[in-house]
Amino acid sequence: MPLSPPDAFAEEMAPRILRGERRALARAITLIESGRADHRAQAVALLDRLKDEGRSALRVGLSGTPGVGKSTFIEAFGMMLTGQGLRVAVLAVDPSSARSGGSILGDKTRMERLSRDPNAFIRPSPSQTQLGGVARRTREAVALCEAAGFDLVLIETVGVGQSETVVAEMSDLFLLLMAPAGGDELQGVKRGIMEIADMIVVNKADGALKTTATRTCADYAGALRLLRKRPQDPPGFPKAIMVSAAEETGLQAAWNDMQELAAWRKAQGHWDTRRAAQARYWFEEEVRQGLLARLTGDPAARARLADLGTQVAEGTALPAVAAEEMLHWLGR
Amino acid sequence: MPLSPPDAFAEEMAPRILRGERRALARAITLIESGRADHRAQAVALLDRLKDEGRSALRVGLSGTPGVGKSTFIEAFGMMLTGQGLRVAVLAVDPSSARSGGSILGDKTRMERLSRDPNAFIRPSPSQTQLGGVARRTREAVALCEAAGFDLVLIETVGVGQSETVVAEMSDLFLLLMAPAGGDELQGVKRGIMEIADMIVVNKADGALKTTATRTCADYAGALRLLRKRPQDPPGFPKAIMVSAAEETGLQAAWNDMQELAAWRKAQGHWDTRRAAQARYWFEEEVRQGLLARLTGDPAARARLADLGTQVAEGTALPAVAAEEMLHWLGR
Repeated sequence: MPLSPPDAFAEEMAPRILRGERRALARAITLIESGRADHRAQAVALLDRLKDEGRSALRVGLSGTPGVGKSTFIEAFGMMLTGQGLRVAVLAVDPSSARSGGSILGDKTRMERLSRDPNAFIRPSPSQTQLGGVARRTREAVALCEAAGFDLVLIETVGVGQSETVVAEMSDLFLLLMAPAGGDELQGVKRGIMEIADMIVVNKADGALKTTATRTCADYAGALRLLRKRPQDPPGFPKAIMVSAAEETGLQAAWNDMQELAAWRKAQGHWDTRRAAQARYWFEEEVRQGLLARLTGDPAARARLADLGTQVAEGTALPAVAAEEMLHWLGR
Repeated sequence: MPLSPPDAFAEEMAPRILRGERRALARAITLIESGRADHRAQAVALLDRLKDEGRSALRVGLSGTPGVGKSTFIEAFGMMLTGQGLRVAVLAVDPSSARSGGSILGDKTRMERLSRDPNAFIRPSPSQTQLGGVARRTREAVALCEAAGFDLVLIETVGVGQSETVVAEMSDLFLLLMAPAGGDELQGVKRGIMEIADMIVVNKADGALKTTATRTCADYAGALRLLRKRPQDPPGFPKAIMVSAAEETGLQAAWNDMQELAAWRKAQGHWDTRRAAQARYWFEEEVRQGLLARLTGDPAARARLADLGTQVAEGTALPAVAAEEMLHWLGR
């Protein structure tokens, strides 16, 4: 279809997004994820048109390694909230999809009930060449979901690497989902993750694993107590709790905790401070990425880079030394 | 102590590294990891001095999420190799240490026997502000270990995110260590990781988990068969195998496989091609990081960035729109 000019597009789409039309939302996110400049212009115009509407959702980051039951948790938790009349959006930032765009042994459409719920919206991770790109676009998708009137936006991620940090940079609260585990496996939780987690949620507190879950939860609670208190933590936070997504227990208590934390941070002013700092972060990230794109856009720079790259590949120059030379050349 | 000039330092240190002196190696790696310009100059001079010595180790990347028994595997595998008279270095790239420099519930000094072995050298992940920085320095540490005469350099990483990709970019072979798991957890292995893995090693093939391990191994083997053959794969690779680090079984077979794969790639020319491409990659990465450092080095650019950042933080400008303006300003 022929593309309408960005402003006309924004004028046409904005009311549909504001009414919460899922098809319009899905289409707008597709434009956000697109690599085409004209798509990008439309998406930015739409975001700009919507930014002053003042709608705000609770943005909850959620991480956990494969096997902890993330999908089951999101489905059970999301269904509970939609049952209470809330609207829930689920987005994903998946660094491991960067290379190929998907998993081989499963996919994100595992949340069957939730994906059919009219009060829910589920969107898998876009596949892009690098984590930064995926994350910047996901943050814009979060803004669209807010404009579309969702009450809660869950941003899911896998893994223990950088992806948790970038998701925390677009969340109001950050949850780490864990499985019950014995002593040796506990060491998997690094201090870096502990520092960004507002709540550690031990899943699978059911059946044969219940005892282990209780011990695991106590271990994490103990570890959290070792950390220095942050100004944005009310008494009792960060905390470790137990849930069973399978048996749907502990979910309401988890939701109560999240609401308590959110309300406290809003009252203390931490909420606005954090959102402002996050907006700044994503602006700077966008500038950094734009700078890099330029390096590959200029033919003379590309040629010099290729020449030095060949010397490095042939072993006649060290990467560090050749890089110094390239930077010197760029600075002329 | 007063710092000697880079060239004098390199002349003094190079013979000690070449003799395999562990203290000299440890000190040189510390300089590589240092943020100080004078340390950096010494480290680069030393690397440059050593680059033509032509020593080369087998560089093996190894990844696995917490709980799969990575330390136990490395210890058992490393002890087997040193027992055969080989010298083994173990380095780590740990993205989750980026924020704080360490884990709270455990650390990397778990490989007790191996760390006391005179034919082994273990170095934990440096703590730096970002994954790219950690990885670039680790790659230089690999080069030092090669110069120091190690036969095998194992580069360990945690997690399913970008860190596996960066470790693969400095390895000749890449191993993914997995725990025995049921059907639902299998979906954790993403295609992106499958594409870089040369071998999937299912650990804990012992005791009560042996049956599960066998099934898991068969599942992964099946998944690997679904992938398109890469030119650098000899018949039978990538493959899934079983080991028990605890009972020390399957380790020799794993080593035989690695050697077979390495020999084939050397004979076919893939080895040199890959190393050349990797050198080029790290050169370009160094240039990218240098460019970013400049942005924060120029006062006028910093002021403009701060001003636009404030607009973004106050919500009067979108991050994407402000970034466009900043890039335009930088391009004047």
